[in-house]
Amino acid sequence: MGKRVRQFGGKRVLLHYGGGSVVKSGLLDRVKKSLTEENITYVELGGVVPNPRSGLVYEGIHLYREEIFNFVLAVGGGSVIDSAKAIAAGALYDGDFWDFYSGDAELTEALPVGTILTIPAAGSEGSLNSVITHEDGMLKRGAGGECLRPKFSILNPKLVFTLPAYQSACGAVDIMAHVLERYFTNTKNVGVTDHLCEAVLLTIKEEIPKVLANANDYDAQANIMWAGMVAHNNICGVGREQDWATHDLEHELSALYDVAHGAGLAVMFPAWMRYNVDHDVNRFANLAVRVWGCKMNENDPKTTAMEGIDCFVKFLSSIGMPVTFSELGAKKDDIPKLVKKLGVTSHKSIGSFVKLYAKEAEEIYRLAL
Amino acid sequence: MGKRVRQFGGKRVLLHYGGGSVVKSGLLDRVKKSLTEENITYVELGGVVPNPRSGLVYEGIHLYREEIFNFVLAVGGGSVIDSAKAIAAGALYDGDFWDFYSGDAELTEALPVGTILTIPAAGSEGSLNSVITHEDGMLKRGAGGECLRPKFSILNPKLVFTLPAYQSACGAVDIMAHVLERYFTNTKNVGVTDHLCEAVLLTIKEEIPKVLANANDYDAQANIMWAGMVAHNNICGVGREQDWATHDLEHELSALYDVAHGAGLAVMFPAWMRYNVDHDVNRFANLAVRVWGCKMNENDPKTTAMEGIDCFVKFLSSIGMPVTFSELGAKKDDIPKLVKKLGVTSHKSIGSFVKLYAKEAEEIYRLAL
Repeated sequence: MGKRVRQFGGKRVLLHYGGGSVVKSGLLDRVKKSLTEENITYVELGGVVPNPRSGLVYEGIHLYREEIFNFVLAVGGGSVIDSAKAIAAGALYDGDFWDFYSGDAELTEALPVGTILTIPAAGSEGSLNSVITHEDGMLKRGAGGECLRPKFSILNPKLVFTLPAYQSACGAVDIMAHVLERYFTNTKNVGVTDHLCEAVLLTIKEEIPKVLANANDYDAQANIMWAGMVAHNNICGVGREQDWATHDLEHELSALYDVAHGAGLAVMFPAWMRYNVDHDVNRFANLAVRVWGCKMNENDPKTTAMEGIDCFVKFLSSIGMPVTFSELGAKKDDIPKLVKKLGVTSHKSIGSFVKLYAKEAEEIYRLAL
Repeated sequence: MGKRVRQFGGKRVLLHYGGGSVVKSGLLDRVKKSLTEENITYVELGGVVPNPRSGLVYEGIHLYREEIFNFVLAVGGGSVIDSAKAIAAGALYDGDFWDFYSGDAELTEALPVGTILTIPAAGSEGSLNSVITHEDGMLKRGAGGECLRPKFSILNPKLVFTLPAYQSACGAVDIMAHVLERYFTNTKNVGVTDHLCEAVLLTIKEEIPKVLANANDYDAQANIMWAGMVAHNNICGVGREQDWATHDLEHELSALYDVAHGAGLAVMFPAWMRYNVDHDVNRFANLAVRVWGCKMNENDPKTTAMEGIDCFVKFLSSIGMPVTFSELGAKKDDIPKLVKKLGVTSHKSIGSFVKLYAKEAEEIYRLAL
């Protein structure tokens, strides 16, 4: 692993991680040993939390000013990687790193980032994106740029054997959601990427039950880890408009209630689907047939489309995911607040497949109750 | 386009191409203009033929010694790109470039290569491979190395509107074959890459009839172009043993009769499948169900497997491909010669899914009569 860091020019590394699990498992010690063997020095910054916060990013950037490192190594899941990317970008920027997340500055330069993945979910190990929650107002926002794509990522299925079942399931939903955000497109005749999307969805559908039955199933974990990478490195999204409204809807949930991103997506995606099914019934019906094994009703494809959504919900429940606001611990009374924080109005929308304004966003939250 | 060459350091370019079509279409002139606009100089070397030959590669390497270029730009199909890669590798090598193809030297260094693709088929625009035929003995051999992967490839569907139907069909078969060589594996539990392979196969099955009906179908051509890239950049082959015996069997056909690679594959792949179906009946049956839409016979999956092969043959015929030696213009009496040139013996084999020695290779050629 140290060899990889050296290959990409790393001489002094920021070792970035979350809580105790990478320490307890001995992984962090192994990483340090490997760096030392390559004569690579390091500074450490642990403490990343799920839905990673701006505070630690500022701390990392401050550390850079004092300690000067030239590589950021993330050891953890998507939150750690996203935080590492934010530090990598902010280190080389004179202004406030949040400018990249608020849309006030374009991201063109960052320190090189490498990752050792311990949670298959976010796909940040192969993507050019990062999502951070600003503690001032608990705003959850994303930034992206090719410079943020990790130089290498180590995906070792043995590192995820110890993940709790709930976290594995949340990760699986996140992976599916990354594909679905790309699947629901208005771009016509994109069969090759449609089928690639379906391939990833089928993989998760088939493999996650094996992981929940036996977390030490190396092959199932490997399939899921790789699916997570493919789901978000954009091979499934080439040449097609993408939606991403459901991620926006969910970000407000996880920012407000600090719930797992995957759990929030399990609640919001079926609601989004039910609200938008009429926009392109055939696309929903194809998904039902190709992924959920429904039989196409040629006379009434909408029944097939709705059956597919029902199958999805049943699947989500079967892997232990919440599918309603109440199961998630979210509150009906907070819906106006969620809509407001989302920033949509009567003339400002999210999403591409269907543009969602304040009214639509509110109705989708209500469908998720 | 010139901007891309510059981005990867190109200052003086070898412009490599085949026959008249890129000249007649005006593409070559547009490329030259774009290079000149970026103050990039170039030398030209045209004349690449299908199943590209060593002679022109030697000529290109000789040209390098005299003209010193630092970038090779291939304008054409897989043959042009493969020839460009061979020149790029040979230019920086003191010995005979054929050492890389005969297996006598490891390929670690090459000039950067860029491509403008005009035939979706070989996948060389995204792969790290090159196949060249040595005129001394008409030996067709491959070499590979990460340094051969193009720095950029321009895939513009409009550039393939003028392809003759036969050539489009040959390309489609080549793309399918690249996936099938990866699909037939002894590696267990590789669902994610199985499904990705199936996604590409489905795409070709659905899109090539549209292209044959209307070569100006931008969307269908775009799907096929991108499928050709995905089929051979190895996203479908990650983490699994691959076979490649059918390519070896075919290389002897196209070397001896100078037939199109795709046409030779259309003859050889069904024969290879029929010979090897018992090695993993379920894999063949899954392919039949998931790609060819056959119904699984749970009591006798072999009937499903065989039905899938029949569907594949029917599909190949429907797109105008030969499926027998005689349709290809190959001769039964040459089989011993083909086996001999293949280099297999009673103890030297090709393939991984099933190892093929001289006896098996001969029997597969006979199944293709």
